Amino acid sequence: MRSVAAIGIGQTEIGEHWDKSLKEITGEAIFAAVQDCGIDRIDGLYIGNMMSASANNQQNLGAYITDWIGAKNVSALRLESACSSGSAAFRAAAIAVASGEVDIALAVGVEKMTDSPSSEITSSLATAASADWEVDQGLSFVALNALLMQRYMHETGWQHQDFANFSINAHQNGINNPFARFQMPLTQERYNTSPMICAPINLMDSSPIGDGAAAIILVPADMVKGKVIRVAASTAATDTIAVHDRKDPTWLTAAELSSKKAYAQAGIDPGDIDFFEYHDAFTIMATLSLEACGFAERGKGPQMALDGDIRLDGKLPVATMGGLKARGHPVGATGMYQLVEVIQQLRGTAGKNQLENAHIGMAQNIGGSGSNIITHILRND
Amino acid sequence: MRSVAAIGIGQTEIGEHWDKSLKEITGEAIFAAVQDCGIDRIDGLYIGNMMSASANNQQNLGAYITDWIGAKNVSALRLESACSSGSAAFRAAAIAVASGEVDIALAVGVEKMTDSPSSEITSSLATAASADWEVDQGLSFVALNALLMQRYMHETGWQHQDFANFSINAHQNGINNPFARFQMPLTQERYNTSPMICAPINLMDSSPIGDGAAAIILVPADMVKGKVIRVAASTAATDTIAVHDRKDPTWLTAAELSSKKAYAQAGIDPGDIDFFEYHDAFTIMATLSLEACGFAERGKGPQMALDGDIRLDGKLPVATMGGLKARGHPVGATGMYQLVEVIQQLRGTAGKNQLENAHIGMAQNIGGSGSNIITHILRND
Repeated sequence: MRSVAAIGIGQTEIGEHWDKSLKEITGEAIFAAVQDCGIDRIDGLYIGNMMSASANNQQNLGAYITDWIGAKNVSALRLESACSSGSAAFRAAAIAVASGEVDIALAVGVEKMTDSPSSEITSSLATAASADWEVDQGLSFVALNALLMQRYMHETGWQHQDFANFSINAHQNGINNPFARFQMPLTQERYNTSPMICAPINLMDSSPIGDGAAAIILVPADMVKGKVIRVAASTAATDTIAVHDRKDPTWLTAAELSSKKAYAQAGIDPGDIDFFEYHDAFTIMATLSLEACGFAERGKGPQMALDGDIRLDGKLPVATMGGLKARGHPVGATGMYQLVEVIQQLRGTAGKNQLENAHIGMAQNIGGSGSNIITHILRND
Repeated sequence: MRSVAAIGIGQTEIGEHWDKSLKEITGEAIFAAVQDCGIDRIDGLYIGNMMSASANNQQNLGAYITDWIGAKNVSALRLESACSSGSAAFRAAAIAVASGEVDIALAVGVEKMTDSPSSEITSSLATAASADWEVDQGLSFVALNALLMQRYMHETGWQHQDFANFSINAHQNGINNPFARFQMPLTQERYNTSPMICAPINLMDSSPIGDGAAAIILVPADMVKGKVIRVAASTAATDTIAVHDRKDPTWLTAAELSSKKAYAQAGIDPGDIDFFEYHDAFTIMATLSLEACGFAERGKGPQMALDGDIRLDGKLPVATMGGLKARGHPVGATGMYQLVEVIQQLRGTAGKNQLENAHIGMAQNIGGSGSNIITHILRND
C-alpha cells in the first residue's frame, strides 16, 4: 500500500445557509481545497452524507457534485455510516489512493439540515439507531444519549455540573474559529441553568446541527515535495446497533477497537497523541471516548475536563477548533471538519488556537450510539 | 495492487417478502455466500443500498447488518450511487482487498421496497435524478426514460414494437432462474398490448421493483487454490445528473467511458466479452448500453435484439438470468445480482441457462439516468 498525504483543505462556515443549496456549500468547500493545493484535476470523489434523501430530496450525490464542480466524468461515490459518514468518505478516499486506484482523491462531507422542519431532522437522525428496537419505542437520538449519561452518572457518582468543562472548553476554542457555528464563550452558570432537553442532558450538553461542508484532497505521499501531512492510520469498528444489546453500555467497544488498531497501524501509543478531535455530540460521548481510547481511566473522563487536561494548554487538547459543541455538527460533514482541523494544527495554521506541539493528531467520528466508529491518525513528518 | 477473486455468492429470491425484514433478507444472502465458500470470518462489510432511509426508516446499515450477522466489530460501510449502489459496494470491496486493507471482504446489496406505498417508492427513486431541474418539474424516473426513448425513436426511426425482443429475451431467461421475480415467458403480442406507463414506455418495457439481497465474498486471488474467478476490471464514470445538460442525451457517455476503461484494465476488446449483464431497467436503457459499450453501432441496438444476437445462443448473450426485466430490480441490490449471475456463468452453475462459452463476463450497473455507471469485468482462469 502506498503512503497517503493530505495536501488541500477547505471548509464552509457552519450555520443556517438558507441562501445556499447543498451543492453550493459543497462546491465552496471543494473549491477552497482545490485552491489550497493548486491541483488541476481529481481522479475520484468520495462524498460523506447522511440525510440528503430526506432533507434535500437528492441522492446520487456522487454524480450530483461531480457535475456541479465540473468534474462530471469522474468516478464518484457516496459513503454513509450515519454521523460518521464524513470520515467514511475520507477513509474510502485514503484506501483508493493507497491501493493505486486513483492518484488524486477528493473527500468531502456535507450536510444541509436547516432547510427542513426540526421534527423531520429528528426522524432522520433516528435512522442511525435501531428502527426495530429503539426508534419504534419512541427513543430519539438525544434520549439514547440521555439514558447513557444517566447510567454513567449512576455508575460513577459524577454530577451533571461535572460535565460542564467539556462544553466550556469547546466554546472557548470556538471563539477563534471563523468557521464555527458558535463563536462565543460559555460559563459554568449558563451550563448549569440551560434548558433541559432530555434529563440529564441539557441544551449545553448538546451539539448544534447546522449546514456545512468540508473537503480534503489526498495524494500518494511520494508526490509531495517538502513537508508531508501523512495519514498514519485509518481504522473502523462497529458495535451492536441497539445500545441495550451491549453487555456494557457505558463502554464504547468500537472506539476502543478502532483506536487500538489505529495506534498499532501508526506504530504509537495513546501517549504519543498530541491532540484529539473527538466526537462530542453530547458531553457523555466526550467522556466515553476519552475512556475507551485510553486517555482516561474508566469512569475518570470528567476528571480530565475538571483538571483542565483537555484545554489547548493541557495534556491532551481536544476539540481544538470548537468541537461538535461549538464548531457545530452537520452530521455527514462532521468527520471531515475534524480532519480538516487536525490538518490545520499539523500545518501550524490554526491561528490563535495553534498548539505549540502538534505533530500527531487523532480524529474520531462516531456513527449511531457508538455503533460505527472511525478513527484516523495524521502526522507531519 | 493485489489481484482479487470472488469465492462465495448468495442471493434471495426477488419478490414481495412481506414476512421478512430488510436485515433478514440481507442475512439470507450473506449466509448463503458464507456457506458457498466456507469461510469463517470477514474483515470488512461493504453494503449497497439506495432507499432504506425512507423505505425502512433505517440507515447506518453497516452496523445494522454486521450486528445481525454476528460480525459486529468489523469495519462496515454503506455505499450509495442510486441504482448502481450494488456494484458500488462490490467496487469498494474489491479496492479494499486489492489495497491490502482487508483480506476477506463481504459485498452485499439489498433493497426492501414493497413494504412502502408505491407513491413513496416513486419519490425515493426520483432522488436519483436532479431535484433542482427534473424532479421539481414533476418528472418521475419513468418519465425521464420515456423522454429518452421518444427522442431515440425520433432520431433512429425504430418503432415501439422493435424493442420487444429485449423484454422477451429477459423473460425467456428468467424462466429458469429460481431467484427471478418473473419466471414466465412474454410474447410479442402481450408486449404490444400491455398498459402504457408513460408514452412510449409501457409496462413490458419496464423492470419490476422488488425486495432482494445478493452477496459476494472477495479475497486476494493468491489465497485461492485451483480455478479462480478474477475481478479483471472495476471502473466507474459519471455524467451530468440532469439529462437536458447533456449535449447528446441518447448517448450514455458514462457507459462509454467506464466500459472503455474496463476493457483497458482487463486488456481486452469488446469482442472478447462472452456475455453481458446489462442494466435493462427500461428497454431504452438496454439499447443505449449496447451502443455506448461498443457492442452495437449507434442507433442499431434494437437490431441486435431483432436478430437474436442477445439470446443465450446469440453472439452476445445478455440478461442471461432474466436481467432487470424478469429477474427484477431491487434497486440497491441489482448490481450485486448482476455480478452473482456473472459468477454463476463463469463457474458453469447457471443451470439450464448455462452458456457454452463463458470465460469473460461483463456487468454494468446504471445509477440515475446514466449519471453514475459502474462496470465490472470478471473472468475465470
